[in-house]
Amino acid sequence: MSFVRDGFGFRVLARSTENRGRVGVFETPHGVVTTPAFMPVGTRGTVKGVEPAEIFALGSRMILANTYHLALRPGEETVRELGGLHRFMGWDGPILTDSGGYQVFSLADLMKLDEGGVTFQSVIDGARLRFDPERVIEIERALGADVAMAFDHCADDPTDRAKVEDATDRTHRWLERCVRRHRELDGEASGQALFGIVQGGAFEDLRKRSVEAVTKHDLVGYAIGGVSVGETRDAMRIAVRAAAPELPEDRPRYLMGVGTPLDFVEAVAEGVDLFDCVTPTRHGRTKQAFTSRGLVNIENARFARDPRPLDPACDCPACARFSRGALRHFAKSDEMLGAILLTLHNLRFFHTLFDELRAALERGGYARLAARVETEMARVLPAES
Amino acid sequence: MSFVRDGFGFRVLARSTENRGRVGVFETPHGVVTTPAFMPVGTRGTVKGVEPAEIFALGSRMILANTYHLALRPGEETVRELGGLHRFMGWDGPILTDSGGYQVFSLADLMKLDEGGVTFQSVIDGARLRFDPERVIEIERALGADVAMAFDHCADDPTDRAKVEDATDRTHRWLERCVRRHRELDGEASGQALFGIVQGGAFEDLRKRSVEAVTKHDLVGYAIGGVSVGETRDAMRIAVRAAAPELPEDRPRYLMGVGTPLDFVEAVAEGVDLFDCVTPTRHGRTKQAFTSRGLVNIENARFARDPRPLDPACDCPACARFSRGALRHFAKSDEMLGAILLTLHNLRFFHTLFDELRAALERGGYARLAARVETEMARVLPAES
Repeated sequence: MSFVRDGFGFRVLARSTENRGRVGVFETPHGVVTTPAFMPVGTRGTVKGVEPAEIFALGSRMILANTYHLALRPGEETVRELGGLHRFMGWDGPILTDSGGYQVFSLADLMKLDEGGVTFQSVIDGARLRFDPERVIEIERALGADVAMAFDHCADDPTDRAKVEDATDRTHRWLERCVRRHRELDGEASGQALFGIVQGGAFEDLRKRSVEAVTKHDLVGYAIGGVSVGETRDAMRIAVRAAAPELPEDRPRYLMGVGTPLDFVEAVAEGVDLFDCVTPTRHGRTKQAFTSRGLVNIENARFARDPRPLDPACDCPACARFSRGALRHFAKSDEMLGAILLTLHNLRFFHTLFDELRAALERGGYARLAARVETEMARVLPAES
Repeated sequence: MSFVRDGFGFRVLARSTENRGRVGVFETPHGVVTTPAFMPVGTRGTVKGVEPAEIFALGSRMILANTYHLALRPGEETVRELGGLHRFMGWDGPILTDSGGYQVFSLADLMKLDEGGVTFQSVIDGARLRFDPERVIEIERALGADVAMAFDHCADDPTDRAKVEDATDRTHRWLERCVRRHRELDGEASGQALFGIVQGGAFEDLRKRSVEAVTKHDLVGYAIGGVSVGETRDAMRIAVRAAAPELPEDRPRYLMGVGTPLDFVEAVAEGVDLFDCVTPTRHGRTKQAFTSRGLVNIENARFARDPRPLDPACDCPACARFSRGALRHFAKSDEMLGAILLTLHNLRFFHTLFDELRAALERGGYARLAARVETEMARVLPAES
């Protein structure tokens, strides 16, 4: 089961005997990514607080950057002049840019939607800006990531059927325009692939209809969007279970903006290959650590004189060199190093989990791993541990 | 010309034929430092924004931490329980702690000085605290650095003779008590050396008198204090020229809180061996970079689309991977990575300068190097460069 086009490719290497999960290799012009994989988020061109060489050492192989933020500042033409996004971010590996759709609808000031696109005001300088499918493809092309996402309309409430249906249908119409512009600009031969985005909110039938509409376009990959927007876990489950199994087996499947360890365990079992989320980095900056003993707030007074590493099971730079007491002190003192070390740790925790997920897909033991993750994440670090 | 005592030692390896400067090796229980050397400042137990492994890679061999800040939070007993300062900071190399004298007089709330010591209020929790010579030695011993500084009284105006004389004499009386407590606590056999501090402000005779009083105590090293407190460069010059040549040749000489590249060039030529300053790290966080083309404010608009490295002559991670345009964007966006990369760059710039200073002391060309540094530092990066 494999697919190749213009320097891009996807190959399924192994399938789980326990679920729909698979291990694959996604090939891009800037290198290969073994899937399932987690992509750290470099919103403004940097994964917050972490140097590129460190991210690679932690296990990251593909990272994400945000079209909306970079288009506003420094502007896609500046990034292009500076040598493109890889040079700009100091990252030689694969990069994916989102389309800005989610941000335009959730962050932009004075946002006004019409059938053609979205007009809004820049939060940087108040300038009036317009995103439409053609323009977004052009911005992403100027940024120059390996993968560009299509411009989609993500409804703000995934349980409001009328809103979701409207946004989903518009996403399909916009996808036509994105694909056309992408092809006009030489398609994958340009070095950039286009992924389409499935919408449909928390409605099984709308998700299936959306998969049908989106996969009419023969694209390098497909994403499940409109999740991780504040919905319940059940709504996300419906979306993933309805969409993932219907997507082409020989293309990577990307679940956008997800999520937590429990989310990964569930979605990987449905055959999802790629994930991105700000969780490990944002939690790191807010002094929350993912550990094999649960989610830990390092500022807790119980850690003040605790000489042990944050997570004895971890091999990250924070756990190798620092005590819980020192990490707590850095966090309490708002030292940059506290946020940096917890970010490194959380990223390592996520990548280690993906190592384990891939191993379980290949060699069995997925249910056992899933049960362990559920136990770990159900608790916060108890006082005596 | 060498000195050895209980795991500490100093040896002069080479002398300049052009000035009083010398290349030496300072040996401590946690390793050796080739001098002249610059020590980055890790105020609260971390060199701001930089991991220990990175600092070492940049060329740092000895770092400084602040007794005042660490005594207030997390408290020296907490550091001791967590395995001491080396373990706490994740740094296996030599560490020096200042005595808190400078901070108590310049930062503490409701500070009250008497002959016995200083009483003040904690800025963390309002607690009433007292620093006196014996207590400071005990705090530093609990922290466990390789070198502890004696508790000194630094006058706030180095040109007010009456004030300086009073503070200098008190510093000498306090040094007696520091040395006594240090010896009661096993002296250097404990693994910690004590350095005495010369005061005397901008007065040549007071500086010489202070050297005489301080060097009556046979200590592992001696420091020149009371400079870099807002005085003119001339005042610092007077202090260094009066004190440095009078200090024992076989002991390391440490100029506290200094400084800038020009300061190093001048003081090294007077025979100073060790320096510390927040300049490279603080400038990094305020978006100022030291470069071979002068001091650069990276936020300047002229860098927006500049694809070149910050300093083509530099081998740091910022210059190796990032364009000026990207660094400007990170700085303008207040991304942590901007401060981190500029800090790494500035530290590398300082250590590279010390490499060059040592080479010039050994092999000649000091005057030429001094002239080059003066030219570099006299200008800001011109628009066309």
